[in-house]
Amino acid sequence: MTDLSPLPQGSTIGILGGGQLGRMLALAAARLGMKTHIFCPDPQSPAFDVTPYRTVAEYTDQDALAAFADAVDVVTYEFENVPVETAEFIASRCPLRPGTRALAVAQDRLAEKTFLSEHNIPITPYRAVHTEADLDRAGTELGFPGVLKTTRLGYDGKGQRTVSSPEDARSAFADLEPKPLVFEGFVSFDKEISVVGARDASGRVRCFEPAENLHQNHILKTSTVPAGISPALAKHAVMATTAILVALDYVGVIGVEFFVASRDGRPALLVNEIAPRVHNSGHWTEAVCITDQFEQHIRAICGWPLGDTTRLADVVMENLLGEEIHRLEEHLPATRVHSYGKREARFGRKMGHINRVIKNGQRND
Amino acid sequence: MTDLSPLPQGSTIGILGGGQLGRMLALAAARLGMKTHIFCPDPQSPAFDVTPYRTVAEYTDQDALAAFADAVDVVTYEFENVPVETAEFIASRCPLRPGTRALAVAQDRLAEKTFLSEHNIPITPYRAVHTEADLDRAGTELGFPGVLKTTRLGYDGKGQRTVSSPEDARSAFADLEPKPLVFEGFVSFDKEISVVGARDASGRVRCFEPAENLHQNHILKTSTVPAGISPALAKHAVMATTAILVALDYVGVIGVEFFVASRDGRPALLVNEIAPRVHNSGHWTEAVCITDQFEQHIRAICGWPLGDTTRLADVVMENLLGEEIHRLEEHLPATRVHSYGKREARFGRKMGHINRVIKNGQRND
Repeated sequence: MTDLSPLPQGSTIGILGGGQLGRMLALAAARLGMKTHIFCPDPQSPAFDVTPYRTVAEYTDQDALAAFADAVDVVTYEFENVPVETAEFIASRCPLRPGTRALAVAQDRLAEKTFLSEHNIPITPYRAVHTEADLDRAGTELGFPGVLKTTRLGYDGKGQRTVSSPEDARSAFADLEPKPLVFEGFVSFDKEISVVGARDASGRVRCFEPAENLHQNHILKTSTVPAGISPALAKHAVMATTAILVALDYVGVIGVEFFVASRDGRPALLVNEIAPRVHNSGHWTEAVCITDQFEQHIRAICGWPLGDTTRLADVVMENLLGEEIHRLEEHLPATRVHSYGKREARFGRKMGHINRVIKNGQRND
Repeated sequence: MTDLSPLPQGSTIGILGGGQLGRMLALAAARLGMKTHIFCPDPQSPAFDVTPYRTVAEYTDQDALAAFADAVDVVTYEFENVPVETAEFIASRCPLRPGTRALAVAQDRLAEKTFLSEHNIPITPYRAVHTEADLDRAGTELGFPGVLKTTRLGYDGKGQRTVSSPEDARSAFADLEPKPLVFEGFVSFDKEISVVGARDASGRVRCFEPAENLHQNHILKTSTVPAGISPALAKHAVMATTAILVALDYVGVIGVEFFVASRDGRPALLVNEIAPRVHNSGHWTEAVCITDQFEQHIRAICGWPLGDTTRLADVVMENLLGEEIHRLEEHLPATRVHSYGKREARFGRKMGHINRVIKNGQRND
């Protein structure tokens, strides 16, 4: 692992991406006495409202990237689709945390599945689909229904189709771009959980407890903690997350999504996806944990020790999507709210979230 | 009370003062989707690092103040020594919360004591001292030792002297400026507590639980919650704080400091000081309350409903003064830390704080 001496207070953290995750990272960095410099092509980015240090430029603009790297002490990213060339260019001039490896694995579904398989971490059965012949073979071997997905740039349900027959699969194959695709066997699962974990520069790992996630239209709607799973399964999820962090020689916060499926009559975990960044399903930590995921990430990338992940209360995090943000006021008396300051409330867009903290004796509310 | 309709998300809050309190208010405003514009004469102010919107100008610069008032939707302040003329100028152009009345009372020790006396809120015995004749009479009536204080611009032990004899008092009278002064009778007290409370634009009041405060060299060192006082005394402190908020027709967060003295063998409260702003002894709220004092203040001045003040754990807040900030790392594994990003660690300067959250079963650590 590359050595990273602890950055002194007053250092500047560069963040690639100016969305809500970058904004919340910047707020956490400020609490630790750090400055933040946001790099984002969109001048309307919400993160630009919480720091005076900014670069508005394309991720391919090498002059802007060079000036950015020279102006900061460490660089991180808030989304996994940072072009690998951009990440490599930055890494050649300045510490990049997490590194390019995590990015390369996480932004290519096929590379991710290969990585997980090689580390004996259970995942849904899959086949790489470069050609129609691959597609037919995958359908035969894994059966229908299945899910056909792009390997790159898919998120929140974009870039994937459930397919129920070979004809259906061929039609989806024709539509989905870019190729190659991945054919995933259909897994019937009871619930989805996720673990947000962190690894510091000295290799120490700390994970938050698993959250139980509900999606609507492929977009995360709620995360509930504790998740309705056994302690053994929770430990298993934390162990798998730890294995992933170590195998990637990772520094920072990662989000790992799992399906809880039935195997031989017992619940079993399958990794669905990894996200090399702070994660929507970890937003509950800001309301009830001594250290939240944003601060944990900043600590890690600064070479500081990780914080205490103890949870002080049960909690339900709910995303406010699109127009729901305009009903924020209804939630104000009873919940902890977070609004991302986005200018436009487009349909399905993540605009904010609330955390309903369950106080003693209120668990059956 | 002036009506203040709820400000929409994305509004801009103006803050007079760019110190750590302004900085923490700006971070809380960002969580609520608000922008912040900081007005401060010192270009090195820590709050300038957490927003792109700033005015660097003197508080007497009317052109700068006018432009500032026009650029924001509501103005608040992070310190009580904002010149009243400045506050009045702002208030003539833009909502100012809390208003000029609270400022006028809090920045003049004599006005404050008069206000509290008129509202039958117990305080230490005092006399106004305009002349040496006043001084001699005060010494005779209240006895020695006593404390001689300026009425304006005193904080953290500055502008006050303990006096043990009439000669001592005359020497202090000659030294302390500006006049008039206040002579306070010496009160032996068991402990100091404080209540941080808030009142919203509709008149609703919510107070945090009292904290027990320890000072070193007249500077707050620790605040512990719960305070070591009876439930009856805690209720009394909250009631007094509520009375003050109502009497001042206050909108925002206030800090009220109390001595716990013995009267007829029973503990009794005396108000020591009120601060018309978020308060150092309320920094514990950020670690263990559903809503912290900074968010509470932003909610109130925006015309939003106050948040839930429930406390999820016991806690000890400790200020990091001067060079202590350089030992922040020692505190990182076990505590929640907050560093203010100040450039220079001068002796006694408030540089940051830590919150030691007492987890279940750890109370005797």
